[in-house]
Amino acid sequence: MHSFSRAFVHPASSPIRELFKYLSDPEMISFAGGYPDKTLFDVEGLREASERAFQDSARCLQYGMTDGISEIKEQAINFMARRGVRAAPENVTVTTGSQQAFDLLLRVMVNEGDVVLVESPTYPNNIQAIRVSGARIVAVPTDRQGLDIDALERTLEDLRARGVRPKLLYTVPTFGNPAGVTLSLERRLRLVALAVQHRFVIAEDDPYSELRFSGVPVESLYALAQRIDGAADWVVHMASLSKILAPGIRVAWSVAPASIAHRCYVAKQSADVGSSPWTQRIASEYLASGRLEPRLELMRQAYGAKCRALSQALRELLPEALDFDEPEGGMFLWARLAAPVDAAALLAKGIEHKVVFVPGAGFHADEPDPATLRVSFTAHSIPRIQEGAVRLQRAWAAARSSAS
Amino acid sequence: MHSFSRAFVHPASSPIRELFKYLSDPEMISFAGGYPDKTLFDVEGLREASERAFQDSARCLQYGMTDGISEIKEQAINFMARRGVRAAPENVTVTTGSQQAFDLLLRVMVNEGDVVLVESPTYPNNIQAIRVSGARIVAVPTDRQGLDIDALERTLEDLRARGVRPKLLYTVPTFGNPAGVTLSLERRLRLVALAVQHRFVIAEDDPYSELRFSGVPVESLYALAQRIDGAADWVVHMASLSKILAPGIRVAWSVAPASIAHRCYVAKQSADVGSSPWTQRIASEYLASGRLEPRLELMRQAYGAKCRALSQALRELLPEALDFDEPEGGMFLWARLAAPVDAAALLAKGIEHKVVFVPGAGFHADEPDPATLRVSFTAHSIPRIQEGAVRLQRAWAAARSSAS
Repeated sequence: MHSFSRAFVHPASSPIRELFKYLSDPEMISFAGGYPDKTLFDVEGLREASERAFQDSARCLQYGMTDGISEIKEQAINFMARRGVRAAPENVTVTTGSQQAFDLLLRVMVNEGDVVLVESPTYPNNIQAIRVSGARIVAVPTDRQGLDIDALERTLEDLRARGVRPKLLYTVPTFGNPAGVTLSLERRLRLVALAVQHRFVIAEDDPYSELRFSGVPVESLYALAQRIDGAADWVVHMASLSKILAPGIRVAWSVAPASIAHRCYVAKQSADVGSSPWTQRIASEYLASGRLEPRLELMRQAYGAKCRALSQALRELLPEALDFDEPEGGMFLWARLAAPVDAAALLAKGIEHKVVFVPGAGFHADEPDPATLRVSFTAHSIPRIQEGAVRLQRAWAAARSSAS
Repeated sequence: MHSFSRAFVHPASSPIRELFKYLSDPEMISFAGGYPDKTLFDVEGLREASERAFQDSARCLQYGMTDGISEIKEQAINFMARRGVRAAPENVTVTTGSQQAFDLLLRVMVNEGDVVLVESPTYPNNIQAIRVSGARIVAVPTDRQGLDIDALERTLEDLRARGVRPKLLYTVPTFGNPAGVTLSLERRLRLVALAVQHRFVIAEDDPYSELRFSGVPVESLYALAQRIDGAADWVVHMASLSKILAPGIRVAWSVAPASIAHRCYVAKQSADVGSSPWTQRIASEYLASGRLEPRLELMRQAYGAKCRALSQALRELLPEALDFDEPEGGMFLWARLAAPVDAAALLAKGIEHKVVFVPGAGFHADEPDPATLRVSFTAHSIPRIQEGAVRLQRAWAAARSSAS
C-alpha cells in the first residue's frame, strides 16, 4: 500500500537491538549489548551535576545552539587534549551519541553510489547507516592487529584503477567493535598516509580508548594526523560519553576540519535542530567536576577483572570450542567457534539456557562468518559472568548434540 | 579539497538559526525564533519530575529502547487521546524534537527524485530536510485559511497526468508556522480524502494546537482520518513537548500506521540509537504529575495577551505599512509589508535598532515573497513587545527613507 524508500522496503533491524526483547527476563544473562555496568555509574556525581545544571534552568530548558552549548564544547575540547588532539569550537559538533555524528558525516559527504570503506567485521548500526545513505560498502579485512593495511592498499589501488575515489573509511581503531583489537602505531601511520594520498576521510570512532586495562596506549589517528602536514584534513574523530559516563545522557561529539564541521552543523539543523541542552549541561558540569578520572580508574579495574574472569571461564569450560584473544580494553571479546556448532545454533540454545550474546554474522560487511560471536563482558558482576559462561557451555553442549 | 554530497556542496543554513548570533546581545529584542517564554517554564514541576526520574537512575543512565521508553510511550498515548487520536505503542516513535520525526519519515518514504508536497510558506528546516533527502519539492499555495485545497487538487491531477505519485505532503494545519492560520474542518476533510485518493502520506506537524487562546478548536487530521475507513493509513501525526513544556527537553513523537512506525524505529537505530531515556523519563514524570493542564492555561492566557499587545501596537504604529490577521493561537504573526520597504531592508535597519524578526523569503518553497515577515510574540514580556514594536516602527521609518 505504502511506497517506501528503497532502503526501507525490507528494513533490516539491528541484530544487537533485536536481542533487547530477551533482556526483560530478569533471569537472562546478557553478553549482547555494549552496556556499561550500571553499578559503576557515578550516580552521586551525576546527581550533583544535574543540580548544578538546573540552577541555570532557563538555559537548560530553552533551545540551545544546534552544534552544542558553549559549556560542553569547552569540556569536549579539554577532553580531546587528553587524547592529544587540538580542537577549536568550530571543529566540534555535539551529537546525540556518536551514532549521530557518523550519520551526519554520511549526509554531508556521501551521494548515492559513492564508496564507503569499512573494516570487517564492524559495528552493524553503521553498516545500516551506510546502506540507508545509498552508498556502496566496500569491506576491508582485518586480522588480529585490526585493519589489514596491505589489503586496504590493494583495495584503494583497485578503486583508483576503476576511477573511483572512496569518500570515507569507517574504523574503530582502538578496542574495535566487535573484534576488540587495537591498530598498531605503524599501521596507523600508514592508514593516515593512505587517506592523504587517496583523499578520503577517515571516520575514527573512538568510544573506548579510555577503557584500557592492560597493554600500552596508542595515539589516536587524529592526534597523529595533526603532526603530519595537511593530514588532519582527512580525519574526523568521534568521541562519546556513552561508555565512560552513561549512555542515557546521549552526549557525544565529532571533531572535524572546519569545512566538514560546518556542514555537520547545517545537517543537524534538519536532523533534530539540536541535542538536549539539559543533558549537555549535566555532562559539562560533570566533566568540570573532576570526577571522571577517578571513576575511569574504577571502570578500568572493574572491566579488566571482568574480562579476565570471562576469558578464564571460557578457556576452562570451552577449551576446544572457542578461539579468542584476550582484549586489553574496551567492552568486547570476539571469538570463533569450532565446527560443527555455529553462532546462530549456539544462540538458539543459549536463549533456552538464559544466556545471550551477539552472533558475529551481522558484523560482517561482506561474507558473514557464521562461526563468530561477540561477547560483552562489562554489564554483569563476576559471579554472573561466570554463571553466564557455565550456561554458554551447557548451550554449546546442547547445540553440539543437535548438530551431530 | 573534500568532495561533499550534492546537498552540502553549498550548504544553506536555516534563516532562523542564522539570526541566533544576534541574540547574545542583551539589548536585542528578538521576534525571531519560536522561543517559548522562559518565565512560563514550570521550573518547579520539572525539578520535581527530574528528582522522581532520577530515583530510577540506573534506567535513566542506561541505553533505552530506540523508539522510546515505555513510560513516555504511555504518556504520549494519553496525550494523543486529548487530541482525539487513538494510538497503541507500536504506532509511536519517540524522537529528539518533531524535526527528527519528520526527518525519519523522509528517510523511510522518500527516494531521490520523489515528489514531496509542502504548503507554502512553510517551516524552512523542513524545506532543508526535504532538499537533503534528494526529493523534489512541489509547493502548494496557502491563503488566509491555510492550505488551498483547490490548488492542491489541481497539482495532484497534474502530477497524476504525468504519472507521478507524490510520497508526502507536509503541513502544519493548526496555527501554521509561519502563517499562523488554521485549516477549516471542511478543508481538512477534503485533504484527507485527497490523500486516500492519491495515496500520499500527510505529515501533520502539530506542535501548537494546545496553544489556542481564541476561536474554536478544529479536530486534528489524524483524528478525522481515524473516523473514515482506511484513511488513517495515510496520516502521520507529529506532536512535541517543545512549545508546551520546554524545548530543551527535546521530547516529541510521531504517531503513524504500524508499518511506517516500524520503519521509523529502524531508521532511528542508525540515526542516533535512541533519544535520551533520562529526559524522556523526566517528561513522562511531568506528564503523569497532572501539572501540564494548569500550566497550559497560564500559557494560553499569557500568549493571548502578548499576541493582542503586539497586534495592537503594530496596528497603531505601522497602520499603513503592515498587513496581517491576528492569530487565534500558536506563536507567530505573519505579515506583509507595503512597498517600498521589503523585509530584508527592514531587518537590516532592525538590527541597528536592536530588534529582529525573520524575513519571510526563507519560508517560501517556491517564489520567495520579499514583502513577508514572521514575528514571534511569545518570548518577551508585554512591555518589551511594545518596545520592540516601537523599534520596528523606527527601523521601518529608516528603511523607508533609504528606499525613497
